[in-house]
Amino acid sequence: MSFPFPRADLPTPALLLDVAAMDRNIAAMAAFAKARGLALRPHAKTHKSAEIALRQVAAGAAGICCAKLGEAEALAACGVGDIHLTSPVVTPGGIARLKALAGMIRLSVVADHPAPVAALAGSGVRVFVDVDPGVHRTGVTSPEAAVALARAIAAAGLTLGGVQFYCGSEQHIATLADRRAAITGKTAYLRTVLAALAAAGIDVPVVTGAGTGTFAIDAELGVLSELQVGSYIFLDREYRDCELAGPSFEQALWVDSTVISANTPGMVTIDAGLKSFATDAGVPITASGTARFAFMGDEQGALIGEQLPGLADRVTLVPPHCDPTVNLYDCYWLVEGDAITGSWPVTARGRST
Amino acid sequence: MSFPFPRADLPTPALLLDVAAMDRNIAAMAAFAKARGLALRPHAKTHKSAEIALRQVAAGAAGICCAKLGEAEALAACGVGDIHLTSPVVTPGGIARLKALAGMIRLSVVADHPAPVAALAGSGVRVFVDVDPGVHRTGVTSPEAAVALARAIAAAGLTLGGVQFYCGSEQHIATLADRRAAITGKTAYLRTVLAALAAAGIDVPVVTGAGTGTFAIDAELGVLSELQVGSYIFLDREYRDCELAGPSFEQALWVDSTVISANTPGMVTIDAGLKSFATDAGVPITASGTARFAFMGDEQGALIGEQLPGLADRVTLVPPHCDPTVNLYDCYWLVEGDAITGSWPVTARGRST
Repeated sequence: MSFPFPRADLPTPALLLDVAAMDRNIAAMAAFAKARGLALRPHAKTHKSAEIALRQVAAGAAGICCAKLGEAEALAACGVGDIHLTSPVVTPGGIARLKALAGMIRLSVVADHPAPVAALAGSGVRVFVDVDPGVHRTGVTSPEAAVALARAIAAAGLTLGGVQFYCGSEQHIATLADRRAAITGKTAYLRTVLAALAAAGIDVPVVTGAGTGTFAIDAELGVLSELQVGSYIFLDREYRDCELAGPSFEQALWVDSTVISANTPGMVTIDAGLKSFATDAGVPITASGTARFAFMGDEQGALIGEQLPGLADRVTLVPPHCDPTVNLYDCYWLVEGDAITGSWPVTARGRST
Repeated sequence: MSFPFPRADLPTPALLLDVAAMDRNIAAMAAFAKARGLALRPHAKTHKSAEIALRQVAAGAAGICCAKLGEAEALAACGVGDIHLTSPVVTPGGIARLKALAGMIRLSVVADHPAPVAALAGSGVRVFVDVDPGVHRTGVTSPEAAVALARAIAAAGLTLGGVQFYCGSEQHIATLADRRAAITGKTAYLRTVLAALAAAGIDVPVVTGAGTGTFAIDAELGVLSELQVGSYIFLDREYRDCELAGPSFEQALWVDSTVISANTPGMVTIDAGLKSFATDAGVPITASGTARFAFMGDEQGALIGEQLPGLADRVTLVPPHCDPTVNLYDCYWLVEGDAITGSWPVTARGRST
């Protein structure tokens, strides 16, 4: 295969990336963070790509976030040198891998329990106190527990990296006013945690959190010092359904599909189904906006509407939720208009351990 | 890594396969089909594994089904020699790949439109008339259209492989009585299609269809001559929620996960979320049955209940829907009790084009 070749020749379903649009998104977020004196540490669970992580760092990011050790290992092996792990690592095998990775790159990890912290003694890994914002996914659940864990980190001879406070449930609240009210309430609680740490004489170098839905509000509120935004580089249908604040971002990620059946009036069948889109956030939308999508099983979807493409025609769709959709594909095809100009591997695809 | 090693040492989330249970499922379905004089052509979209496809063939299957060309190419490259493609191939690029594949293996494909049939002239690919059972995903939509397409196949100098009639919407009807009533109605329509073909003097060598939810009823009804069952080799939560008929099958597929946070009474967080389970069919269940699962984002899930595992403990889950869940993983870990005895690649993972 030699590049460029016509987009129409690409076998479908295929994941397409407009690198120019993505680069504009990367630059816009970097400029936003810089103007407000905030560190930027984009979340690589969105893209799982070494190429994209390195572009984010080149544009000024302090490093990246990874959700899983396997993701961090894959990206570190491709030259990403500063990674923060946003999920606790708790097993003996995981702790051993974490220590090995810390020998290769600058590494930090969250904790919400003293047992894994004790196991990290002597590793040189910086440890963040993960604070539960109320969703009860991970994190300590009170200011007192945050202080106790920070003391356990010091007692293990480890460096406190800071505090992580990620409000996942607030990112997709549809209206900006409702989202602002929700995140303002959560941040009031975070202030009590930080006050308890300060009262205990504990220095907190970094307060990390935020997502594409709340980063502009978080920046106004002035408590976070580092932004973990992920989806802004691509956008997706779920974020397009929200009233976002801050710089405006462009859609940079698409799935191209092909009509494989057109025997029923008012609908056609395309070659992208449950194995081509993550379904947790509903359905994709067509880029043209002229038809409604419905899942039709593992391998197919339907387009329903009045102005429909014909048999063997191409259709471009916006994924409902970018992160788990990217995780279905082995590579990004780089698109410039009607040409495919290259491809990048989804470096850490499936690296969920 | 050398086998065997303790199951507790496997990094999670991990896809586990009990080969002994799967082999019993394969043998039970093969015996069922043989006793009724039916051909068996299991659907490989469920497992995407060359090892499993070859075991199904060794146990008496006529060949396998694939949903996509890419899946068929990947399995053919590993020695699977007889494949039926259950989705139409309609683009010039797809037709070229189909012709190339037909030079390597015994191959058939469905069609529901004369244009791709004409493009296949001279290829030696056997073509099946795909008949829409009413869901309007693919297939011709009337007996007259079936006759016209069979004539187009003959006019192109191609061999009619038979008729495909797959009732996807009926597979998961919860009660056997309701499912029997639904599939009996659909089969009455299939009889009218076959009668029209017979009246036109067209010989139909194979009538292929059925799934794990309906195969036993289809066998009773006596119209299908070949069964395309897929999920019976593994089972999943979705099929376990249905009243199945025919031989009883065993759960052979699992996801092992680890508790990474346990700070909130009545719940713990595990390391398997939207990237570890397909979500189209709801939530997984725990093998122990002692806790309820809830998705908690891309990378985590919650277990909610009274008897919960502790921090760093293992949890075994049954996937909600096996096919798209398998497609998330690079390999099956082969499990015998508490030992991991080997691994098999998910040969055609992500091969959706």
